[in-house]
Amino acid sequence: MTLRVGIIGAGPSGLAQLRAFESARQKGAAIPEIKCFEKQDDWGGQWNNSWRIGLDGHGEPVHSSMYRHLWSNGPKECLEFADYSFDEHFGRPISSFPPREVLFDYIKGRVEKSDVRQYVQFNTVARHTSYNETTREFTVTVENLKTGITETHIFDKLVVATGHFHVPAVPEFKGIKTFPGEVMHAHDFRGAERFYGKRLLMIGSSYSAEDIGMQAHKMGAAAITMSYRSNPMGYHWPDTTVERPLVTHFQGSTAHFSDGTHDDFDAVVLCTGYQHKYPFLPSELSLTSPNVLYPGNLYKGVVWQQNTNLFYLGAQDQYYTFNMFDAQAWFARDVMTGVIDLPSLTEREADIRHWLDRQAALPDHDAEADFQTDYLRELIDATDYPPFDLDAVSQLFKDWMRHKHENILGYRDMTHRSVITGTMATQHHTRWLNAMDDSLERYLHGTSQDINTGQDINTDTPEDLTDTLAAR
Amino acid sequence: MTLRVGIIGAGPSGLAQLRAFESARQKGAAIPEIKCFEKQDDWGGQWNNSWRIGLDGHGEPVHSSMYRHLWSNGPKECLEFADYSFDEHFGRPISSFPPREVLFDYIKGRVEKSDVRQYVQFNTVARHTSYNETTREFTVTVENLKTGITETHIFDKLVVATGHFHVPAVPEFKGIKTFPGEVMHAHDFRGAERFYGKRLLMIGSSYSAEDIGMQAHKMGAAAITMSYRSNPMGYHWPDTTVERPLVTHFQGSTAHFSDGTHDDFDAVVLCTGYQHKYPFLPSELSLTSPNVLYPGNLYKGVVWQQNTNLFYLGAQDQYYTFNMFDAQAWFARDVMTGVIDLPSLTEREADIRHWLDRQAALPDHDAEADFQTDYLRELIDATDYPPFDLDAVSQLFKDWMRHKHENILGYRDMTHRSVITGTMATQHHTRWLNAMDDSLERYLHGTSQDINTGQDINTDTPEDLTDTLAAR
Repeated sequence: MTLRVGIIGAGPSGLAQLRAFESARQKGAAIPEIKCFEKQDDWGGQWNNSWRIGLDGHGEPVHSSMYRHLWSNGPKECLEFADYSFDEHFGRPISSFPPREVLFDYIKGRVEKSDVRQYVQFNTVARHTSYNETTREFTVTVENLKTGITETHIFDKLVVATGHFHVPAVPEFKGIKTFPGEVMHAHDFRGAERFYGKRLLMIGSSYSAEDIGMQAHKMGAAAITMSYRSNPMGYHWPDTTVERPLVTHFQGSTAHFSDGTHDDFDAVVLCTGYQHKYPFLPSELSLTSPNVLYPGNLYKGVVWQQNTNLFYLGAQDQYYTFNMFDAQAWFARDVMTGVIDLPSLTEREADIRHWLDRQAALPDHDAEADFQTDYLRELIDATDYPPFDLDAVSQLFKDWMRHKHENILGYRDMTHRSVITGTMATQHHTRWLNAMDDSLERYLHGTSQDINTGQDINTDTPEDLTDTLAAR
Repeated sequence: MTLRVGIIGAGPSGLAQLRAFESARQKGAAIPEIKCFEKQDDWGGQWNNSWRIGLDGHGEPVHSSMYRHLWSNGPKECLEFADYSFDEHFGRPISSFPPREVLFDYIKGRVEKSDVRQYVQFNTVARHTSYNETTREFTVTVENLKTGITETHIFDKLVVATGHFHVPAVPEFKGIKTFPGEVMHAHDFRGAERFYGKRLLMIGSSYSAEDIGMQAHKMGAAAITMSYRSNPMGYHWPDTTVERPLVTHFQGSTAHFSDGTHDDFDAVVLCTGYQHKYPFLPSELSLTSPNVLYPGNLYKGVVWQQNTNLFYLGAQDQYYTFNMFDAQAWFARDVMTGVIDLPSLTEREADIRHWLDRQAALPDHDAEADFQTDYLRELIDATDYPPFDLDAVSQLFKDWMRHKHENILGYRDMTHRSVITGTMATQHHTRWLNAMDDSLERYLHGTSQDINTGQDINTDTPEDLTDTLAAR
């Protein structure tokens, strides 16, 4: 009987799994019967963003945590598909840090080229899964969100590709209940235009706090405070921005910090991270992990230890993204189809333990990049995913982190070289700090201007920002 | 074997079901084995409000749609429990339109008096339900949100008491994606303090639009526009407020209306209602209905037509609330325990049809109040729920609606007489328009002031509002 494979989610990870099977099919392999369930009405996951907050039009939690004017915060050269280059997609070199819509276009381009959309049931959410130990089958109940009809599907293999950056972790703070201004988690942040002239408190010290904070600075926020639990980020912040230790409590619109200082704020953005959550899985199949580079209980970061018919993609904290999901999907494919033989439970446990021990000893961010590079190397070596110069990518990560520390507002104006094609990125026509139009159209066809003048803000204003800027 | 009853939700409806069984037990009846699952960490449902928006601390959709400074928008005399009066709870007369915390205290008071908390598993969300036609048993999978552990329970009878005012209906509007200000559904509205001096657009023409709009007026919003799809509400709005037909599209911060007018706004609140949604039920057991006084497919508005072991409480649009949930819970109890014999499917269908036909012909709001009054009468007549003067309550609804039309900012200062105890409500010490502290403490123990002076705003300012007011 043909193998039946279920994939939950058609974001970058789910699409990587479809592409992995498509790649095998193109090489003549028999491929399984595949069904991929996607709750949104299009693929792309996080990259298919929405203006909505909280719950979507069907009353399901909004998936995307992205926002207007989000530009890549890492070099595109670090996430380039080994089998579908930026050159192939755009037909010419582009800059290293494109906005969301440009990267969304890129990931769609690869899957649109092949015939994989047929496998995806859109507007379909996974509700419940059970596993029968005797028949070795998963029964997955899904709901068609347009009709409300629930139905069950039987699978031999199940791929969890729903990601783990969409369910916010939102701690409680004393007095926050009566803070009179806006309070939101970064997940519900949709744009900083309205923070012009406002005093913003970001609670958190990772990517969200840094990026939303600098977004608010770019849009003219009066003051930005970043509040950290353990350590400050320590970037060379602009004059608008300071770091403070953790909030102890709120009193009216005043936040009090653990160093005894206090300040008044108009809005609070909780950049407090995300939680792994798989409400469609029973607890014995559900990954529980903080956001780390190597969650336990997954062999090669992919195969569920107690049930090797279950696979997780992208469950790691991520230096690498799209290309890591690819490497994982190729690996999962080969395990499912028997091309790769799994070692015994004990051997797998020892392998996981080895990685966890190494993870526990990582001294700094550079070492973390090397760690994930080595992880990718193992996956890629085990499959026919096109090899590429992983050490060069690891160096790119280190350069990028150094650039951020040198210039948090300018690192996106740097250019990097593709390890896939050797192509050097072009300088974008507008500095990130002045780029007020993040559309694909403007990105690709905007007028080229002197990168050093910084005078292009007036010509780089989309219609929807005109009112806001005029009102200033 | 003892009957096994599962109850999903411990809000006013779920608590009514617990109380119905408790009442029978006190009269000497044998009561079933009861398990009630509540996803929040306390009971009270909507009344157990939260500062959070979107998803809660466990990543579950936030249940409560209530907000700071929410005062009852209907007379408390219309919702009074027949078996637990306001006099019994507070020991003295209070006003007719108390704030949220006061009503929360009241509904908690009744269940705290009895020993029903033992039946409730808090922090426990229902994930999945199946029904076995042969054994006539429900299998319900629930997840303990604190441990992540899923487990299954078997029930003979299942009561759906999750309500239908917590999953927002959020339509799409052209251009809303790039509206630079705040956009939220009423479900995520938490307080109007920050709208001081702002221009607000409320889309909708029902309770949410009216109440949040007047809340914003009370808190000093500069301008409030209410946008209706079919008909304006037509209240005597204050000078800040106008009604406009439906938004056709947004352009930047400008909303365009179908009458050709347009205006600029700082924030948009989508008061576009709620949807029935039961993600823990298979579609064949899941109620699909608009928000109406009599949803189809429920005999006496309670018993699922195709499976009479399944019960819905509070699935109606509501004039009556707490006392209606009681009447339904008493009825459901007596059906479950065989005290009430159900007529045949065909007879039940005819009964439902009778109500649906009558509903379809309702000419106005007064007739709607009479309709739901008659519905309650049938339920109460069928059980031992303490009878009370329903016609008097129906008249209260009509008086209340007339008061609203006479004075949308003043109707909450009116007083009404209890049909349970005959007690006349007292005038509250502060006019609603001036009452800036909605705490139980201030409500019960605030200084009594002349209702006619309107000069008490300075003394009625809680600590958490001081900063905001000072900043004006």
